[in-house]
Amino acid sequence: MGNHKFSPQYEDYRTETDRFLESLFLGEPLYSDLYASIRYSLLAGGKRIRPALTLEFADLCGMDWHKALPVACAVELVHTYSLIHDDLPCMDNDELRRGKLTNHKMFGETLAVLAGDALQPEAFRLILSAEDLSAENRADCALILARAAGADGMVAGQVLDTLHHLTSREDITLLHSLKTGAMISAAAEMGCAAAGAGAWMRQAARQYASQVGLAFQIRDDMLDVIGSEKAFGKPIGSDKKEGKLTFVDLLGMEGCGEAIRACTEQAKAAVEPIPNHAFLFRLADYLADRTQ
Amino acid sequence: MGNHKFSPQYEDYRTETDRFLESLFLGEPLYSDLYASIRYSLLAGGKRIRPALTLEFADLCGMDWHKALPVACAVELVHTYSLIHDDLPCMDNDELRRGKLTNHKMFGETLAVLAGDALQPEAFRLILSAEDLSAENRADCALILARAAGADGMVAGQVLDTLHHLTSREDITLLHSLKTGAMISAAAEMGCAAAGAGAWMRQAARQYASQVGLAFQIRDDMLDVIGSEKAFGKPIGSDKKEGKLTFVDLLGMEGCGEAIRACTEQAKAAVEPIPNHAFLFRLADYLADRTQ
Repeated sequence: MGNHKFSPQYEDYRTETDRFLESLFLGEPLYSDLYASIRYSLLAGGKRIRPALTLEFADLCGMDWHKALPVACAVELVHTYSLIHDDLPCMDNDELRRGKLTNHKMFGETLAVLAGDALQPEAFRLILSAEDLSAENRADCALILARAAGADGMVAGQVLDTLHHLTSREDITLLHSLKTGAMISAAAEMGCAAAGAGAWMRQAARQYASQVGLAFQIRDDMLDVIGSEKAFGKPIGSDKKEGKLTFVDLLGMEGCGEAIRACTEQAKAAVEPIPNHAFLFRLADYLADRTQ
Repeated sequence: MGNHKFSPQYEDYRTETDRFLESLFLGEPLYSDLYASIRYSLLAGGKRIRPALTLEFADLCGMDWHKALPVACAVELVHTYSLIHDDLPCMDNDELRRGKLTNHKMFGETLAVLAGDALQPEAFRLILSAEDLSAENRADCALILARAAGADGMVAGQVLDTLHHLTSREDITLLHSLKTGAMISAAAEMGCAAAGAGAWMRQAARQYASQVGLAFQIRDDMLDVIGSEKAFGKPIGSDKKEGKLTFVDLLGMEGCGEAIRACTEQAKAAVEPIPNHAFLFRLADYLADRTQ
């Protein structure tokens, strides 16, 4: 997956996230085909950016970040479900994801729908059975996730992306703030909530993450144009093919670069008052410049 | 929907559940097509048996049952999502549900998948923002729901029902205990958890509900054979058509009647020690004898 080694801390977060996810959906029940389908997508080598945000903000709020792993991994479960369902024939109808067959191409449409369906409650289960969190902090984290994943969050963004033909920069920005921004912001805020942090930190986390998330999406649109199929792991121009308007269409390549710089600056400004913000600065820069 | 008036209390539960559900997904966001699709299925006139169980157990545990409405309605949201997804072309491929077009026939497959996807986190949102419950009781209710709806609960049952060809009474019973029993048991237990009740009540609620749920499923299989298309609201023998083994195949009609009586007796025995068990007895009898 290229160079993620912008920070040893990120490597730690990623390793522990993968280790935790590896421990889920083991065993051989009568319905172990469901487990296989879930594990295929969950362990397909994602960048684990959302969990890293959760863990970093938990750490910044004074919590032992290892105790926030169930919360961080819950975000990754919801993210994975959204990828499985987004790839379905009735959605983007994609055959490849991260260079591998999509879930429904590998396991069939029925099991792909059901794997996604199961991942949602399993995400809440992880949070709500996290032994190292108080009931209040568990309930708080789960509520943040519920709002971000719901009918006025990620799913609303997917509806706009799949079924609406949006044309203004304002509407496209709303689409992405819902489709990807809501979950990225939630991931960051859940780190604060897991640690029982107050309103100021939670607001800073949301602002940082929403700007980083927007920059991430703009970069995604740029990479869709400039990337190679091999490096990016999905067919180039697949969004364009379906007639979806991208930030490149709206702003041009140069304008996208400027927008990403502006988002990154705003993201940094939001967390600059936090003493140990170095990781967040590096993460913002890494995401702004990523080539895959 | 025929005679539900076996109890004025049930009518109260049903009316208040419908009123609460009516208040959700209003407004006109850019993605109001999602709201329309959700409301179409959510307000399609279900019997609201699961919410009634939640509300009755909350009441039996000494709580003002009105305060448990968000928890009760959360169960109905999850139940509704499961019906929408069960009807999809890649699942049972049904065109009619409760005498109306299924969600994907009305709104298309994309929106039907997304309506179901949104209903899950919205269910957790309802519970986790229930103001009249303590954080501990909110977290408790949400965890019960997460387990029942997840990869070792309802979805596992749907995997067995859709993708496996089970032949033994033991396996078919496991299938239904997961597919429908898990959520019915959760509904009852969540009423206890909302009220902060202890282990004995929760265990009694689960035992009652799991027996009632099994009786419900066996009756469903009988009605599939004896019901008329008009009364039952879906094509007769649709399960049989797909080669799924039913309790009628396993036990015969007479054997089904006996099994229902046995389940109903066990359900009653589980709650007999509870002083005001009259409603639960009547509900068990009503479900055992229902004609639709």
